[in-house]
Amino acid sequence: MTNSNFSSRLLENAVNEFASLPGIGRKTAFRLVMNLLRRSPEETRRFGESIIKLREEIRYCEHCNNISDTEICDICANPKRDRTTICVVENVQDVMAIENTNQYKGVYHVLGGVISPIDGIGPSDLKIDTLEARVGTGEVKEIIFALSTTMEGDTTNYYLYKKLGKYDVLMTILARGVAVGDELEYTDEITLGRALNNRNPYRQL
Amino acid sequence: MTNSNFSSRLLENAVNEFASLPGIGRKTAFRLVMNLLRRSPEETRRFGESIIKLREEIRYCEHCNNISDTEICDICANPKRDRTTICVVENVQDVMAIENTNQYKGVYHVLGGVISPIDGIGPSDLKIDTLEARVGTGEVKEIIFALSTTMEGDTTNYYLYKKLGKYDVLMTILARGVAVGDELEYTDEITLGRALNNRNPYRQL
Repeated sequence: MTNSNFSSRLLENAVNEFASLPGIGRKTAFRLVMNLLRRSPEETRRFGESIIKLREEIRYCEHCNNISDTEICDICANPKRDRTTICVVENVQDVMAIENTNQYKGVYHVLGGVISPIDGIGPSDLKIDTLEARVGTGEVKEIIFALSTTMEGDTTNYYLYKKLGKYDVLMTILARGVAVGDELEYTDEITLGRALNNRNPYRQL
Repeated sequence: MTNSNFSSRLLENAVNEFASLPGIGRKTAFRLVMNLLRRSPEETRRFGESIIKLREEIRYCEHCNNISDTEICDICANPKRDRTTICVVENVQDVMAIENTNQYKGVYHVLGGVISPIDGIGPSDLKIDTLEARVGTGEVKEIIFALSTTMEGDTTNYYLYKKLGKYDVLMTILARGVAVGDELEYTDEITLGRALNNRNPYRQL
């Protein structure tokens, strides 16, 4: 589908905007725009405005850098959360993933990425200073590293470990091992090797 | 990903809006919204406004019902197009598909769907009256049926054939046969049967 055959510039603009999104090709973009065209003007306006409003009014929590509608996010503001444990994650999606487990009652710190020299991301591009400031108050007892299990994640873990070593704080990392539901046969050798080394005493669930 | 774990209502709203689009699940919606959040406010505003503007300002060509920014679409307004031939299609996408072949120099008529009793779509829901009015002027020499090769498409073809039979106009239909690039082995028997019945004298391309 080439651009030249659009009979409407308005249509072409909207399709181009949708096609600029990751994973959305021109055909899909066209299909989505046609769907919006079939809705009432009010519904379509609500769609467009939800995006504009989000971008213009969104804030980041002053404590943990999580996405928020207010100065302090709901998690940091919740008196039931344990402020002595900070889980360090890459992004907002990771906060939601961990919240979905219903296993964590501490607070978070969203770094905004991981150290990745190849992408030009150094420690100063991440929210490491504010993490150090939080640890520096002496309130924090444990920091859980919950970054991606990639080279960049490991590098960032190591950097944080060195940087925060001077504080009296326990640093832990998510267990690595065979994913629940995975077959051994298809588990890669590095994961399997780590799972062997980190084996635990057997106990009934 | 459940709704309850969104730390921002603005974010949740935008994700819900994206997830209302066909083929976009909640995870994809979230990914798309995060992408928009990383852009500049101006870019995101342009995105949102392109949709609102489209929905509020779009028009349909008074002649052919094609999508248009003006009263008469570019195709109908083009003096080089042959007004004596009308290609009847279901929707705007089909106009673009045919335009992309660069094989057609006539004009179009967009029905806005096909007759489908199961979906409650009858002849009066389609732009059939305006098609008849165009044929009634006596200017039109040929009508090409280019609807979907489905039961509904066939029903609509037959309805139009009966309805327009009283006018002195040639009615043709797109050739049906083996698709270019398809292997015979995988062609369904109805298509193959039609392709056999409608076989043409061999000529070199």
